[in-house]
Amino acid sequence: WRSQSHTAGKRLDISGIYPPIATPFTEPEDVDYQKLDDNIRKYGRLPFRGLVVQGSNGEYPYLTAEERVEVVKRVKQALPKDKLVMAGSGCESTRATIQMSQRMADAGADCVLVVTPCFYRGRMDSRALINHYSKVADSCSVPVVLYSVPANTGLDLPVDAVIQLSKHPNIVGLKDSGGDITRIALMVQKTRSQDFQVLAGSAGFLMAAYAVGAVGGVCALANVLGQQVCELAQLCVSGRWDEAKELQYRLIEPNTAVTRGFGVPALKLAMDWFGYHGGICRSPLQPLSKADLEALRGKFSSNGWL
Amino acid sequence: WRSQSHTAGKRLDISGIYPPIATPFTEPEDVDYQKLDDNIRKYGRLPFRGLVVQGSNGEYPYLTAEERVEVVKRVKQALPKDKLVMAGSGCESTRATIQMSQRMADAGADCVLVVTPCFYRGRMDSRALINHYSKVADSCSVPVVLYSVPANTGLDLPVDAVIQLSKHPNIVGLKDSGGDITRIALMVQKTRSQDFQVLAGSAGFLMAAYAVGAVGGVCALANVLGQQVCELAQLCVSGRWDEAKELQYRLIEPNTAVTRGFGVPALKLAMDWFGYHGGICRSPLQPLSKADLEALRGKFSSNGWL
Amino acid sequence: WRSQSHTAGKRLDISGIYPPIATPFTEPEDVDYQKLDDNIRKYGRLPFRGLVVQGSNGEYPYLTAEERVEVVKRVKQALPKDKLVMAGSGCESTRATIQMSQRMADAGADCVLVVTPCFYRGRMDSRALINHYSKVADSCSVPVVLYSVPANTGLDLPVDAVIQLSKHPNIVGLKDSGGDITRIALMVQKTRSQDFQVLAGSAGFLMAAYAVGAVGGVCALANVLGQQVCELAQLCVSGRWDEAKELQYRLIEPNTAVTRGFGVPALKLAMDWFGYHGGICRSPLQPLSKADLEALRGKFSSNGWL
Amino acid sequence: WRSQSHTAGKRLDISGIYPPIATPFTEPEDVDYQKLDDNIRKYGRLPFRGLVVQGSNGEYPYLTAEERVEVVKRVKQALPKDKLVMAGSGCESTRATIQMSQRMADAGADCVLVVTPCFYRGRMDSRALINHYSKVADSCSVPVVLYSVPANTGLDLPVDAVIQLSKHPNIVGLKDSGGDITRIALMVQKTRSQDFQVLAGSAGFLMAAYAVGAVGGVCALANVLGQQVCELAQLCVSGRWDEAKELQYRLIEPNTAVTRGFGVPALKLAMDWFGYHGGICRSPLQPLSKADLEALRGKFSSNGWL
Repeated sequence: WRSQSHTAGKRLDISGIYPPIATPFTEPEDVDYQKLDDNIRKYGRLPFRGLVVQGSNGEYPYLTAEERVEVVKRVKQALPKDKLVMAGSGCESTRATIQMSQRMADAGADCVLVVTPCFYRGRMDSRALINHYSKVADSCSVPVVLYSVPANTGLDLPVDAVIQLSKHPNIVGLKDSGGDITRIALMVQKTRSQDFQVLAGSAGFLMAAYAVGAVGGVCALANVLGQQVCELAQLCVSGRWDEAKELQYRLIEPNTAVTRGFGVPALKLAMDWFGYHGGICRSPLQPLSKADLEALRGKFSSNGWL
Repeated sequence: WRSQSHTAGKRLDISGIYPPIATPFTEPEDVDYQKLDDNIRKYGRLPFRGLVVQGSNGEYPYLTAEERVEVVKRVKQALPKDKLVMAGSGCESTRATIQMSQRMADAGADCVLVVTPCFYRGRMDSRALINHYSKVADSCSVPVVLYSVPANTGLDLPVDAVIQLSKHPNIVGLKDSGGDITRIALMVQKTRSQDFQVLAGSAGFLMAAYAVGAVGGVCALANVLGQQVCELAQLCVSGRWDEAKELQYRLIEPNTAVTRGFGVPALKLAMDWFGYHGGICRSPLQPLSKADLEALRGKFSSNGWL
Repeated sequence: WRSQSHTAGKRLDISGIYPPIATPFTEPEDVDYQKLDDNIRKYGRLPFRGLVVQGSNGEYPYLTAEERVEVVKRVKQALPKDKLVMAGSGCESTRATIQMSQRMADAGADCVLVVTPCFYRGRMDSRALINHYSKVADSCSVPVVLYSVPANTGLDLPVDAVIQLSKHPNIVGLKDSGGDITRIALMVQKTRSQDFQVLAGSAGFLMAAYAVGAVGGVCALANVLGQQVCELAQLCVSGRWDEAKELQYRLIEPNTAVTRGFGVPALKLAMDWFGYHGGICRSPLQPLSKADLEALRGKFSSNGWL
Repeated sequence: WRSQSHTAGKRLDISGIYPPIATPFTEPEDVDYQKLDDNIRKYGRLPFRGLVVQGSNGEYPYLTAEERVEVVKRVKQALPKDKLVMAGSGCESTRATIQMSQRMADAGADCVLVVTPCFYRGRMDSRALINHYSKVADSCSVPVVLYSVPANTGLDLPVDAVIQLSKHPNIVGLKDSGGDITRIALMVQKTRSQDFQVLAGSAGFLMAAYAVGAVGGVCALANVLGQQVCELAQLCVSGRWDEAKELQYRLIEPNTAVTRGFGVPALKLAMDWFGYHGGICRSPLQPLSKADLEALRGKFSSNGWL
């Protein structure tokens, strides 16, 4: 099966927009699969390429291994067949990541998104990371997408490691949430011969990323303003850059507010405002203070979204 | 039982030296419980106050929940009864931390060491951390020790949170690995009325920490030079500061080499040199390069230890 | 004169490309005005909007006040009249900055570029910076351009301060060298009603900056590949984004090499290779090692420039 | 004279406590030499080893070269002959530092304190810094003290550079304001054979620094609580560590408040409270807000000083 997978891997087109979905919880902080289902059905009607399950916004570090797999299974069931399920399978150890990746593939994931291990970040140099990702990609029956998110991990996947890994037959792309546009452009340039696909990890720099050669984005804001993020992507793809710029401007502040600004609790609150199930986070993530809630609302209303 | 525990908690004297033990692995990277046993029996003959099981040097982020508990159980069995087992039970979510803490207590841990959750570090302010630790301490049948290790977590447990948490009847102390001696002194001063015990998280600043009021240390280097670290502590406790200073000097470079310098792989290599079972790390941690190995050796030999 | 200046200020069009020129030195490290003249005359034949004199690449912190003014005077004399002289007049204190700005204006500067004061960066909040820039702009007879260069100063000029300062009649724009494209887009959006002009501070993200609304760039690399940087700008301005992208790619690595990678000594070395006078830096800046020199050359040759 | 100086250099005993004096200004922000004189005469009656003129707290980056020299001259005149004048002569370029060091020596400085140049911090490696300090020490007729203050410069003088420079006959010591006690101990250990003297750069870790072998301190807080800081030093020198610890505790919060917490404006305000001339700072440094002023006062009063 491996050679098949690898061939398939290089054929998997991951271009387009993905919301990294949130995980709804009941009041005692159990996963609320019913509300998850509701959200997925709504997202299924938007022009997304697929969903990212258990990116940073999915509170995956707060889920058990069983919950992580079960959520992937539910999403696969509820989502139209033409949408991709990109499942976040990263763990700290290589062996746990290998195991989790395969479990998610077996649960229906079309590809897996593997965050950089980071606890021993002082030792996570290119050698260690190339070793880690190569072993995971070697053993996984679905394609692997690299994932660099320094705001959470304190670690940037080094460009030389990305270049090396882009040559692996079962590694098809990268989600970069760091937002350094020079780095993104450089990675696109240096991996062009490999059919390697770069996704912007945030709506804040989505247009700029498209301009320098990215082919899509995994955007927290797409959980809230999904139609608009898809429209921005479409404007970029069709070269209508002036219109794209105007739309991009209006998305920056709301995007920052639900990511770096106020985090997952803000994303979930905004989801509630826009007709999705957001709700509480698992502890220790706390609800927004009243002042932060007002500031969050202001970032949406001043840009014409509320 | 809770009131008993809490009373007991405040009575638990955690002062003294602890090696944060490493976890030996077999060649296919399974936990090698036999070698673990051997190490514990050797450590049992040294004048340690106890052992820390699954601090950062134990590669705990690479162990499964079952392995984490099993290692605690084995250590408890192999260690003389007068030594403490301080077990690292921290997880990212509050609910997982509560569960793991109790499992470790049930497996024989005398107290639990709870690292700051850190993945969503932008949201881990004092409010969130006080909430997290309070819930864990409320529910745990053994005393809780706070654990701040910014080199790994990118997060310092704020002093105001430490002060607040020192008032909890089941929180008995703090391991601080950051090494900011001003901060350590301030925390000692501000928690004096609470019978709160501060442990230095590294041998590099152990003497200075004693000087400003710490009562012990959890020192990676004690896995290698256990007798010497205990001797340094004893010199400090008995006020023989000039002798302490001379010994402290000779421990700084070896200590830095097995911690910040070259990390857990270096610690395990040095353990092999000094008659313990170190061996390989779980992937993605890589063995030292030959150049780093030589540099590591130099830090021990130039200070007269090899 | 002030109302004239202010009116003039708002009319000054600073859009386009500027090399932040280097300062050539003789062997005993005196300013080599003859070589400076030669460079200026060559730059005068390229389609630059003007020159930045004493940006970070001009080693201005190493020049005396007298040298700083004299260099501006020489550049003004040697440069064709239709080119702008944008002179870096920032000092740590407000009073020194006011004085230096006026001296440079008197020496022929068309506008002044004022770097954020940074030594007391812990106190340089929006209040302090708005106060500083307002006083400088109030008193200066030529327009003021803000300058944020966190790699050197450890300080980002906060967006809210930029927005506030954009309303000052004598502040016409900003050079942003940080490279955070989301921030750049946000500043363009938030200052649109003010006829405020944003310049990219590096060639590495020049195309992306144009895409989100910047109107030019101050690019170290333009000291070396001036024609090519101007061509990239022209492609952006005329909406030929696909061609722009291809050219942008080839400029990233050389740009990084002469800025963050190897710094001013590398910039000057590359200038020598491309027919300009680069030469030595003032001490304590050191010449490149042989290995770094080879790496630098590789970044130009592998992208087809050498 | 050089061999004399060098011999003298190695004989200069710099051990003891120094306030890094503030520079008083009149309302239009001119140096107020009369108030400076008053302060110096008061400081002259305290058991200081001497004064540091133009450390970071002297607002030296805001003074002209002429003012810097004149302040040194005035301090020399007003200070009793048995006290040292340690004058901060660091500039960004080596040539300016050489010149300023000699001017200050000629104005009466007993030794010069040379901060790390930092604007091009990416290039300020050990090679550059050893070169810089060696040239300055070679040419200076009074001994040189190294000065590392990462909070302001974003740069730690590397330990290997300190070790190398400690061998220079005209370099007698180091002021380290970073506060990393492990680093301080290591530097003391590694320079023991050189009669090299390490001074703590802050009162917050003064006792710990003495414990590991420092011989004094340059402490902003000594501008305010000079008697107390000298008493702490005396307790350390005479081995009365328990009493020292109690006093150290009470100095931490006031010290942090007038340094990292609220900076030079807070130091000057506290000076006013304790009978010295503090007053305003030069712009862009701003006065404390009312809330910060109250917080500052609280740090003194809660520790029994107000």
